[in-house]
Amino acid sequence: MRNLKRGPQVVLPKDLGMAVAFTGVGRRSTVVDAGTGSGFLAIALGNIAKSVITYERREEFAKLAERNVKASGLRNVKLKRKDIFKGMSERDVDLVTLDMADSEKVVKHAKKALKEGGYVVGFLPNMEQVKEFVRELERNKFSEVFTLECITREILVREQGVRPENTGLLHTVYLTFGRK
Amino acid sequence: MRNLKRGPQVVLPKDLGMAVAFTGVGRRSTVVDAGTGSGFLAIALGNIAKSVITYERREEFAKLAERNVKASGLRNVKLKRKDIFKGMSERDVDLVTLDMADSEKVVKHAKKALKEGGYVVGFLPNMEQVKEFVRELERNKFSEVFTLECITREILVREQGVRPENTGLLHTVYLTFGRK
Amino acid sequence: MRNLKRGPQVVLPKDLGMAVAFTGVGRRSTVVDAGTGSGFLAIALGNIAKSVITYERREEFAKLAERNVKASGLRNVKLKRKDIFKGMSERDVDLVTLDMADSEKVVKHAKKALKEGGYVVGFLPNMEQVKEFVRELERNKFSEVFTLECITREILVREQGVRPENTGLLHTVYLTFGRK
Amino acid sequence: MRNLKRGPQVVLPKDLGMAVAFTGVGRRSTVVDAGTGSGFLAIALGNIAKSVITYERREEFAKLAERNVKASGLRNVKLKRKDIFKGMSERDVDLVTLDMADSEKVVKHAKKALKEGGYVVGFLPNMEQVKEFVRELERNKFSEVFTLECITREILVREQGVRPENTGLLHTVYLTFGRK
Repeated sequence: MRNLKRGPQVVLPKDLGMAVAFTGVGRRSTVVDAGTGSGFLAIALGNIAKSVITYERREEFAKLAERNVKASGLRNVKLKRKDIFKGMSERDVDLVTLDMADSEKVVKHAKKALKEGGYVVGFLPNMEQVKEFVRELERNKFSEVFTLECITREILVREQGVRPENTGLLHTVYLTFGRK
Repeated sequence: MRNLKRGPQVVLPKDLGMAVAFTGVGRRSTVVDAGTGSGFLAIALGNIAKSVITYERREEFAKLAERNVKASGLRNVKLKRKDIFKGMSERDVDLVTLDMADSEKVVKHAKKALKEGGYVVGFLPNMEQVKEFVRELERNKFSEVFTLECITREILVREQGVRPENTGLLHTVYLTFGRK
Repeated sequence: MRNLKRGPQVVLPKDLGMAVAFTGVGRRSTVVDAGTGSGFLAIALGNIAKSVITYERREEFAKLAERNVKASGLRNVKLKRKDIFKGMSERDVDLVTLDMADSEKVVKHAKKALKEGGYVVGFLPNMEQVKEFVRELERNKFSEVFTLECITREILVREQGVRPENTGLLHTVYLTFGRK
Repeated sequence: MRNLKRGPQVVLPKDLGMAVAFTGVGRRSTVVDAGTGSGFLAIALGNIAKSVITYERREEFAKLAERNVKASGLRNVKLKRKDIFKGMSERDVDLVTLDMADSEKVVKHAKKALKEGGYVVGFLPNMEQVKEFVRELERNKFSEVFTLECITREILVREQGVRPENTGLLHTVYLTFGRK
């Protein structure tokens, strides 16, 4: 889980950690995730939550993710080959995670799927996306809307001296949260 | 879970998030935690893991924590009024979290309690503690020893403009990880 | 010069430092500054540059700044009670610093005032201002357009342990640079 | 002056900026610098200060620096092929900058060279060096002892979206200041 070098295309552990810590997702939670991509986020959440349903409409990613889910040994992660822009059938969900382009268009569907008190989280690379996502959360009457960024540094502890690593990740995504 | 303003005495959500993301603790995990303090970390982990045993020898904190655990409704968090410096009886543990002074003295006990592949995490305010903790991990042949710090900023998204909050937390703890 | 606690309304030393380091302003430079405010930036630059002309149209700030300039003992800082939105008469200037609302409207005047190779720097609290400022720099054919932010932490070095300060400044302004 | 990618071996603009901003060095200042290295810091300060004397005992660096100083066109930067551990002959100096191994051993010489109110600044990669440098400043009765670190991020402003650069510098040096 530790690889900080994987590049910004995949949700990184630090951002997964923020999503977990600030939504309180746990072993009794039901999660809907979109889009699946390689499945890293769905699998990481599958390790924590009771069940994860993850949406992916692109066949090549769906295949890759299915392989990764199988390799993980997790049986509580289910992949749906569906277009989440058309809505999700799940209800009483504790958490909806959105790591995809145009994720603000899924906010209204997330509102329906979530239980009272449930959270939606957007993983948003750009400022403009944050603004749009927040606007959509407000339009759909989410409460506790907030946005975080997380900068993680490795500290090198060596005989010759302790210091932060010289180069590394400065930015991956902003995380925007809303609560139903 | 969201309060970033609680001050540095309690493990904060951002640091809990790091500990979860970089150890892979999940719904099937057994955790030993020390010292309990107010119980925030034990409760947050109790929400995720199968079971949490938390050590606290100071009676006033033990009482406070018991009240907080009860209020949380979690039945998988058990408090032990014992001195963890004398060792822990648990075995085959997935994660040991140490948020206490002189935590490096517990590393050898953690080694015994952990299963192969399990993690110990120290929450360490100062550089000197990091060095001592790392030295003790190496002495006890832990692998994958690494140290992180996490800086989290809230981004204010307002009609008049998007920007990070002006003031806030710059430092809480360093997190040092080791794997058995 | 050291007070990190002054709040975000005044240009802070860290941001002055960025402006100096990334424009190469020095003892032979001529600077135009707007708006003066309390005069901190004009005085700090007056300590470095050959001459500083600073524009302030609001009488109460002009008075305050004149008092501060006098107290500094600097004779190379001149205050103009003029509206910089109407243009500046200076030519062959090395650096134009803009710490004011609607500073993007001054970019075209800065272009005229600067010598070839000279820099304009905007001190911009919000993302939206950065975008507008950059757009205006590009419209006016500035080259080497870039934007920085600078996060400074004090490190506490004490007998009981070395660590960053717990709370402090997370954001003041973005600095946007352009070169003629 | 802008190249953030040069790696941590040379003083970078951001750290030069901190040194300038927090010491108030300006066009009337006299500076002693050691060790010269490639001469970047001496040249950058030579652009600002009245005069800079820079110490370098390693012949290959002295040659390189002399070439760089010549290329800069600055006539107020003088290189001394001397061992600064044996002391400096300059007096009434406004600023001493130390970017070299074992710089804490030069603190007592800096004390003699500085005028009342003058600053010494150490550029220190590791925590242990910071501690030693601070200890030596205290032993030599410097006042206003403080240590800073500066994290600079470039913000990418593009049609497709505004966001910080993904990777870059996380650490170069800590800056430790003391005032006579």
